[in-house]
Order: sequence, then C-alpha cells, then structure tokens
Amino acid sequence: METINIAILGCGTVGGGVAQIITEINNVLSMRAKTKIVLTKIVELFPVQASERFNIPLGLFCGGGKDLSGKEANEYIQEIISSEEIDILVETIGGKSDFVYNLCIDILNSGKHLVTANKALLAERGKTIFETAEAKNVKIGFEAAVCGAIPVIKTIQEGFTGDKVLSVSGIMNGTSNYILTQMQNEKQEFADALKLAQECGYAEADPQLDINGGDAGHKLILLIKLAYGVDVSKDDLSISGIENITKEDIDFASEIDAKIKLICYAKKVNGDIYATVRPMLVKKGNFLAAVEGATNAVRINNKYSGVHFLVGKGAGSTETAMSIVSDIVFIARYGDKIQNVPAKQERNFADARQFVFPYLITFQTGNIPGTTGFITTAIGKQEINIETVSHNRHAGEKAMFSIATMPCTLGQIEKAIEEIRSEKPGMLLSEPKIMPILY
Amino acid sequence: METINIAILGCGTVGGGVAQIITEINNVLSMRAKTKIVLTKIVELFPVQASERFNIPLGLFCGGGKDLSGKEANEYIQEIISSEEIDILVETIGGKSDFVYNLCIDILNSGKHLVTANKALLAERGKTIFETAEAKNVKIGFEAAVCGAIPVIKTIQEGFTGDKVLSVSGIMNGTSNYILTQMQNEKQEFADALKLAQECGYAEADPQLDINGGDAGHKLILLIKLAYGVDVSKDDLSISGIENITKEDIDFASEIDAKIKLICYAKKVNGDIYATVRPMLVKKGNFLAAVEGATNAVRINNKYSGVHFLVGKGAGSTETAMSIVSDIVFIARYGDKIQNVPAKQERNFADARQFVFPYLITFQTGNIPGTTGFITTAIGKQEINIETVSHNRHAGEKAMFSIATMPCTLGQIEKAIEEIRSEKPGMLLSEPKIMPILY
Repeated sequence: METINIAILGCGTVGGGVAQIITEINNVLSMRAKTKIVLTKIVELFPVQASERFNIPLGLFCGGGKDLSGKEANEYIQEIISSEEIDILVETIGGKSDFVYNLCIDILNSGKHLVTANKALLAERGKTIFETAEAKNVKIGFEAAVCGAIPVIKTIQEGFTGDKVLSVSGIMNGTSNYILTQMQNEKQEFADALKLAQECGYAEADPQLDINGGDAGHKLILLIKLAYGVDVSKDDLSISGIENITKEDIDFASEIDAKIKLICYAKKVNGDIYATVRPMLVKKGNFLAAVEGATNAVRINNKYSGVHFLVGKGAGSTETAMSIVSDIVFIARYGDKIQNVPAKQERNFADARQFVFPYLITFQTGNIPGTTGFITTAIGKQEINIETVSHNRHAGEKAMFSIATMPCTLGQIEKAIEEIRSEKPGMLLSEPKIMPILY
Repeated sequence: METINIAILGCGTVGGGVAQIITEINNVLSMRAKTKIVLTKIVELFPVQASERFNIPLGLFCGGGKDLSGKEANEYIQEIISSEEIDILVETIGGKSDFVYNLCIDILNSGKHLVTANKALLAERGKTIFETAEAKNVKIGFEAAVCGAIPVIKTIQEGFTGDKVLSVSGIMNGTSNYILTQMQNEKQEFADALKLAQECGYAEADPQLDINGGDAGHKLILLIKLAYGVDVSKDDLSISGIENITKEDIDFASEIDAKIKLICYAKKVNGDIYATVRPMLVKKGNFLAAVEGATNAVRINNKYSGVHFLVGKGAGSTETAMSIVSDIVFIARYGDKIQNVPAKQERNFADARQFVFPYLITFQTGNIPGTTGFITTAIGKQEINIETVSHNRHAGEKAMFSIATMPCTLGQIEKAIEEIRSEKPGMLLSEPKIMPILY
C-alpha cells in the first residue's frame, strides 16, 4: 500500500479535530483511500494544550512538544513546504493575512495539495490561489470552507455534474440563524439573543462578520464560483446583515406566515447572475423556514432534478474537521484527476436591485386619513402589483404599514418610496424596511 | 480530447431522460468530464414513441428507427456488449428478471462500466453483480437506484469518507409519503389517497411494492451495503408497509405532535446492525416530519459531523436520469479509481425485535373499570416505563387506548401483550398497533 503524508499547520478547534479524526479512525481512512494515510507533523505554537484537548501524541508536534515562537513555527512550516515527503498540507491557521496568503501560494507552488477551511482567504483572495493550483496541477480541498460539515462542494462538483444549477440559496451562518431563532421562539430582543449566542460559543467575541452578512457572503462567493465558474467579490454582492431586525419585524413576518432568515441567494437568469445576502421572509412552505438554531441549510434548484436541500452542522470542531478529512481521502483516491473549480466563465453580474422577488415593505406613518391611498397609488405607478396591505397596528398617533407586493424589483420599490418622500415629506416616519419574500 | 461512448438499453421514462440530458447539455458534460461524451446507440422496442417524447434523433436507435422484436433487440444488445467501442452501458430496462440479471453480468464481464437505476435487481441479486464488477475492475454507477435525484450514494462514498455512519434513516418511497400526507392534511381514507396517488401518476397500476415497504426496503439494503459494507436480504429486514394505517392512527399521531411516515432505519450499535422499514411516528422537531408529498429525504447521523438531511425528488424522468448522467461523468473523470462498495464486513445483523425505541401502542378494549390498571401493570412487569396513557376516546361500549412508552424493545412489548391475552382473554378488542416514535 502506498503512503500519503499529511502535515497540519495550526492545531486549534478545526486543525485539532483533523488530527483527532485521523488518529482515531486511521485504518478506516486508509482502507477508503486505498493508501496509507499518515499524519506526519503538526505545527502549533502551544502543543501541550492541543495535545491534551484532542488527545494527540506530543511527538507529532514540531519541536517535540515545547511552545514555539512565531519565528520557530515559521521555520518549521518552511521546512515542511520544502520537504519531499509531505503530500498534503492542511492549513487551519485561518484569516486572510498576507502571511497565510503567501503560505498557501508557497504550498501550491511546492507541488503539494492544500486542504483548508479558510473561507475568508479563498473568497477574498482566492483568484491567484486557484490559478496557482491550476498551473501546478494540484488540488485545493475546501469542503470545510462552505457550511462546515455539509458536503455541498462535492454535491455540486460530483453529485450534480449531470445537471445545471439554476439557483443556490440557503442559511449559511449559524450564529445569525441562532439569533433569529431566539428572537422568533423566545421573543428575545436582538441584543439579548446576540449575547446568548456569544455565551453559547456560537458567536465570536467580535461577531461582526456573523451578523453583518460578511461570513455568509464568503460562502456565497465560493458557491457562485463552483456553480457558475464566475469570480465575484464582496462588493458585487448586495450584502446586508441582521443588525437592524427587531421583534416588530418578526411579528410582521409571522403575520404572513413567514420567518425571517439571513439568506444567501444566487440565481442565473438568461446568462446573468443575480446574487445577494440579506434577511428574507421565508414562507412556512419553504423548508428553510424550518431550519432552526445554529444549523446550516443549502437549497439548490437544478434544471433537470429540481429542488434539493442539504442540512447539517455549519461549524464545530470535529464537524468542520470531518470535511477536511474527507477532502484528504478524496485527494488520496483521485489525485490529480480532481477538478478544483469549473472552467472560468464570462462574468455577467446583474445589479441586485434588478432582482425580481415579491417583497414586504414596512414603515411607520402618521395616523392621517388618505395615507393608504397616497402610498398605494405611488406604488401602483411603478407598475408594482400589491398582494396585501396591512396597517392595523396603531401606536398612539402612529400607524405601522406593511405592504406585500407581487414580484417586482428593488429598484421599482425604491422609486415609489422616493416619490412618496418628495411629494409628501414627513409622511414616512421611519426608514422603510424592504425584505424579499421567499416561497 | 478523449472520447467516451455511451449506449442506453431501454428508452422509457428514465432511459429517455438520460438521452435527453446527454443531448441537450453535451458540451457542458464533456467539459466537466474532460472527455468527449458521446451517446452512440440506443436499444428500444418502440423508437418512434421515445424519439418524439424525449426529442432524440431517430438515427441513434439501433435498427434506424423501426420497431424491434424482443429477439432483434437482444441481438443488438449482444452486439453492443461485444463491441470494443462502447465504454459505458446504461441499463434502464428495469426489473430483476434473469434476462436483466444476465445482461448486467455480461456487461461487466465484457469489461464495460454499468450505470443503472435498477434498485430491485441490485438489492435482491446484487451480490454476484458487485463481485463481478470487482473482479473486472469496472464501475457500477447506481446513484439513481437510491432516492432518484438525491446524490446520497456520492454523499456517503465521497462526502463522508472522513466519518463513520452511526445511523441512516429516511423517507425513501414517494408514493407512500404522498398517501400519508393526503391522509394527514386532507383527512382522506387510505383507499382514496391511494387512488389519487395512482391518478397523479405517483403509484404504479400495481402499487404493492410502494405501499408494502418493499421498494423502500430495496433502497435501505443498498444504503446498508454502502454505509456498513454488509450484505443483507429483504428477509433480514423487518418490513411492514402502510396498508393498515387508518385515519384514527393519524389522529393518535397528532395527539403526540407527530406525523406517521414510512421510515427506513438502520443503525449500528456495538458492531450489530439493526434495520427495519415500517411506519413510525415522527415528532414535529424531526425534520423528516416536514417532508410532504412525493419528496424523499435521507437522515444520516455521523460520529464526527452529527446529523445531516438530504432532501429531493425521489422519482421522475429527468430527475432520476440526472443521477445516471452524473454517474457517467464521474466514471469518465475518475475511471477505475472509483470504489463501488466498501470492503465487505462481517455480518452482524441483530433482530429488529431488539431495536430500542420509544413506542406508541394503540388498541381497543371494552369500557370496563380496572382495564387501565391491568394493562399498565402488565407493561410495567416487562420493565417498560410508560410515558403517557391516553384512553379518552370512547366509542359506545369500547375504549381506545394509546400508550406511549419510554425506550424499550418490540420484544418486551410483545411479551406484555401476550400476558394480557393469556390472563384476560377478550380484554383486547383489536390487534394492537405498535409504532416506534422518532424524535
């Protein structure tokens, strides 16, 4: 039996999980890979801690188990990159710093395969990384970078090769979904739910990327690359997060039998790709509405095989590590026959404001007769059909409006609001919230 | 670019869909396979009909488009099998007859790859077929045989190679799920729901295999082989269907916030495999409860990555065909590096009556004081803890009992019932129904 040698760079939550799985079920993995899988070296600044947490022999750590300085760690890393013996490098340091970027480029240039969970790096600085892998005919395994344990990359790249992806959408950030679930089920305010998410270890100390849609955006960028062969940047996506969602919004959603979810959505229409990350009102008939807590879910609509859902854990130590180990087995099995990403396609990226959805528009007005007529007339002028109007919530002198439209564009709605503002300054007492409705 | 030549045997609902997809998106498929994929020949008794239905050039059909006798078709098939030019044969004739069995063996013996949706054949007569493929080092693509469009085989074989499957369960027969959904949502009787399923084209004219659990059993047999490397036969599984489910059972399920679903379930506990196909009461918190109509869903619980759900279309022309085409691309990409099924494991198959579940037991008794005490005492004697007892439905002189137990075995429950019967003949006025409760 041949041997494939693995080194792990960074033995934290994910890297440690990888070492644990490779150690615990080594025989099974080798049998599946038809190749003996050997964990050869680990580079980690604090080996004792990692060794205890993940039950890994100290002897595997470069330096024999003593704490390393950054400089020492880097010397070991360079040694591993130049070694002829190592076949696959697992990068679980994380972040999109120049250090990690250059490290990945060096790994690929050395002719070694790279497996990583680093979505920020691949989404924001992936272009040259993928090109380097292509030039060197080595593989980048990044299953773990998109929705943790859910094998969505292999599903698109190997499971759906007989089909064309029409749209891909889903709940791809567990923290924000946990917060929204708490607000929905426990009637919590956003700030309290966020605090709880942090206490439960779901959100980072700085949870910005979780709640502002940035983390979900990284995953959507990678899925667009896979499904459509197109490079997009974060600026191309129209991203908004859940920071401004209130209990009142959750109530409006309930009124139309929907739940608010932070949704990633990309769709190809006549060669143009529309993509966005934003809170949407998911109707109860859509499976995504039933996805609660820190779970992730991806919905893929295909030309020939229709709608699919993949649901699973989007984060966690062994959960994410499992995807890395599966990539290792995949590379060991199929070697250089593996395709990293599809051939590059021409980039036709449409303005998200032209995205056609039914929308729910909510805002406050004064409690003044004639308001409904004026507002609905302004909306009608933009050729928007109205599904329902509800303004039965009066709070003192104020009235809460919620208007559900038939499918139209964000651009049309913005024009209608502009007209209301210019014709009747002062009629709108709050910034209108405009959320797509997902059936 | 190299070329890979395909022949399709049988151009009905599925085979025709395969021809349609290969024709419509040929360029995309070839790009993905890095090999030119060429549909070379189709053998079909009635080519004109198939050509029109799937928009396939008549010239592709053996015989040039004229109807074939069985004998003529068979001669063309033999010609294709002996041809050096064909690389992959798609068997979409179906059924587990000797004719189809021998055909598949001949295909594999000729050194050609086989792609098929034939679950009955592979589940009931697959042993020699898989052994032949192994001996000849050719691939059997059978993604289409398990849950139509859902890529569950690639998910287990390629996506979860870094994990161990603890249990696999799910809704794997669309027809029976459609019937149960109609009974639940539209309050229909079984017979009416079945009739509607037939009218909608879900159920076969003879729907026996759909409703008696046989079809779902075929899929479970193949999943057990994939997940655990173990050969089982239909006789090993404890299979019961949905024929005896009544509206009353649906009501009992609603009382405990559950829905009745025909569930395939296999679990490995301490090296022993427990497997069964039967109606279960799926609690609302379990995603499977939300799967309605003809949709299929598979739940996989893994050691390291936890619970996953895959949801999609379990049947249909292009839906099932998509899985066949994906298998073709997979074989074209990876050729003989592909593993068909895992190495054979020792067969430890446990008695399904030792399967530990919480159960719901329902039956009728006379409306006689002391009954509840006697029955619950008999159950307690078997060391079964009772979760709830409900017998508030009285119909004339009869009382309907429903008893939810804590986790126990079917064997324990059967013993309790036996005791009630022998001590108090006539107390039970109906055959008790015993259904597992799935959380």
